[in-house]
Amino acid sequence: MLTIRRLSLSDARMLIAGARERAHEIGVPMCIAVTDESGQLIAFERMDGGKVTSTIIAQDKAFTAAGAKRTTESYWEASQPGKPAFGINSAIGGRLMVVAGGIPVVVDGDVVGAIGVSSGTPAQDSDCAQSGIDHFLASLRGPEAS
Amino acid sequence: MLTIRRLSLSDARMLIAGARERAHEIGVPMCIAVTDESGQLIAFERMDGGKVTSTIIAQDKAFTAAGAKRTTESYWEASQPGKPAFGINSAIGGRLMVVAGGIPVVVDGDVVGAIGVSSGTPAQDSDCAQSGIDHFLASLRGPEAS
Amino acid sequence: MLTIRRLSLSDARMLIAGARERAHEIGVPMCIAVTDESGQLIAFERMDGGKVTSTIIAQDKAFTAAGAKRTTESYWEASQPGKPAFGINSAIGGRLMVVAGGIPVVVDGDVVGAIGVSSGTPAQDSDCAQSGIDHFLASLRGPEAS
Amino acid sequence: MLTIRRLSLSDARMLIAGARERAHEIGVPMCIAVTDESGQLIAFERMDGGKVTSTIIAQDKAFTAAGAKRTTESYWEASQPGKPAFGINSAIGGRLMVVAGGIPVVVDGDVVGAIGVSSGTPAQDSDCAQSGIDHFLASLRGPEAS
Repeated sequence: MLTIRRLSLSDARMLIAGARERAHEIGVPMCIAVTDESGQLIAFERMDGGKVTSTIIAQDKAFTAAGAKRTTESYWEASQPGKPAFGINSAIGGRLMVVAGGIPVVVDGDVVGAIGVSSGTPAQDSDCAQSGIDHFLASLRGPEAS
Repeated sequence: MLTIRRLSLSDARMLIAGARERAHEIGVPMCIAVTDESGQLIAFERMDGGKVTSTIIAQDKAFTAAGAKRTTESYWEASQPGKPAFGINSAIGGRLMVVAGGIPVVVDGDVVGAIGVSSGTPAQDSDCAQSGIDHFLASLRGPEAS
Repeated sequence: MLTIRRLSLSDARMLIAGARERAHEIGVPMCIAVTDESGQLIAFERMDGGKVTSTIIAQDKAFTAAGAKRTTESYWEASQPGKPAFGINSAIGGRLMVVAGGIPVVVDGDVVGAIGVSSGTPAQDSDCAQSGIDHFLASLRGPEAS
Repeated sequence: MLTIRRLSLSDARMLIAGARERAHEIGVPMCIAVTDESGQLIAFERMDGGKVTSTIIAQDKAFTAAGAKRTTESYWEASQPGKPAFGINSAIGGRLMVVAGGIPVVVDGDVVGAIGVSSGTPAQDSDCAQSGIDHFLASLRGPEAS
């Protein structure tokens, strides 16, 4: 039997809060998804004005980052023409996202879930996703709790 | 009427055993799928720590290699920008995999099934898939049995 | 953060072995799938002669039993005409199975995975799935090992 | 290694010819699909006036009959409310057909493929499918050869 560590709902809310705060700062309404380590959705928020297409894309970014234990941005690099993972973007019915904005949440070396953000540029999406993770990891260390 | 040769379940186990042994050697937990010559799943194993996304990708690599009677790596080459098969990676709902790691199993000139491996780099996946085939083909000749 | 218990690959093999033994006894070649508690495939075997359609159905029975933490048979009851869950069989793109043969694996009150069996009658499928679970649970208590 | 017998293309044409002839007799333009024993399409014809929806349904009827080694009509019976296979009609993304018109082709006890017919009433579809099989089996015995 294996023992797995996984984000709770309150953890997921913390991740979303961090991403949402950053989205407000840069003025881009985002879709923000948090999945567990198996890629299953825990929490999702579409900020008013977030894109409809991004409701799916944010989820798939988080699914990819959790399931493959790497950022979607790293796939972007690895799937360029001539690179080894070229063509992987259409895998799993197109759910495997290679556009930046999906980042695994790593605690003590274990992937415990992932966050996926979509509606801005890939750089903005990634920025907000990372802000969510920073906020969450800070909460694990600091006195604040959800 | 046609007569077709096809991997049995015990053949599939032999293929998986060979791939798994190589995966242990290189220290990468893999998802390993074996399909028959029609691309239908015969056996599958996700080693502890294998990627969730690879449960599908390993099966689709085997499906592609069996169905198209060629390695997924050969599609990688053929589907680069400007090459004739460019864009084929999204065919069949994204099941057609062009990333290395899917190899047909050929016995006496006939494709009798395929193996698909995923979770490492494409080169590692392909290495393990080939080890599975080598192990299986050796078992056909030698005295060793599973 | 949550802590989750999950079947390992060796656990999954034990479950398949128990189901396969029963399938041999009743003379029905089966497709047998084991998923983790999130419904993601760990291991699969199609016995020689198992049905092609059952390669998918066995996986979806295990997915349903793990994900919903109940037997697919219990959904059969609940989804009859006039019953509250009527029509749920087509949910999740048809992956939600209400035909008997999918059973969650429960250890110390936690669903740690599931087994799905298909190719016989629903009663035969369920019988073999339960035999897989019995074999696995006995192995947790006893000295026997895979 | 297993040895499998499978319909050839000329066999498939014979099956379609028999079904088409019957369709002409009853005055219903049909979609007629023939798959191999794994449910993969070998040949298909939509008679002028055949229904567009039936291009898919005929294929799925043949897929079901081949993959499950039974008539789709037998599933209709087994999947009525209160019957063991109730709810199976939506399995495999809805490809599992329980409406009459899909019949496996059995030669010397082996399922070697299947025929699926759609556009008429289920009884008409089944009638034409059976006529295809009768025509094919007669050709195996008689002086005419494929």
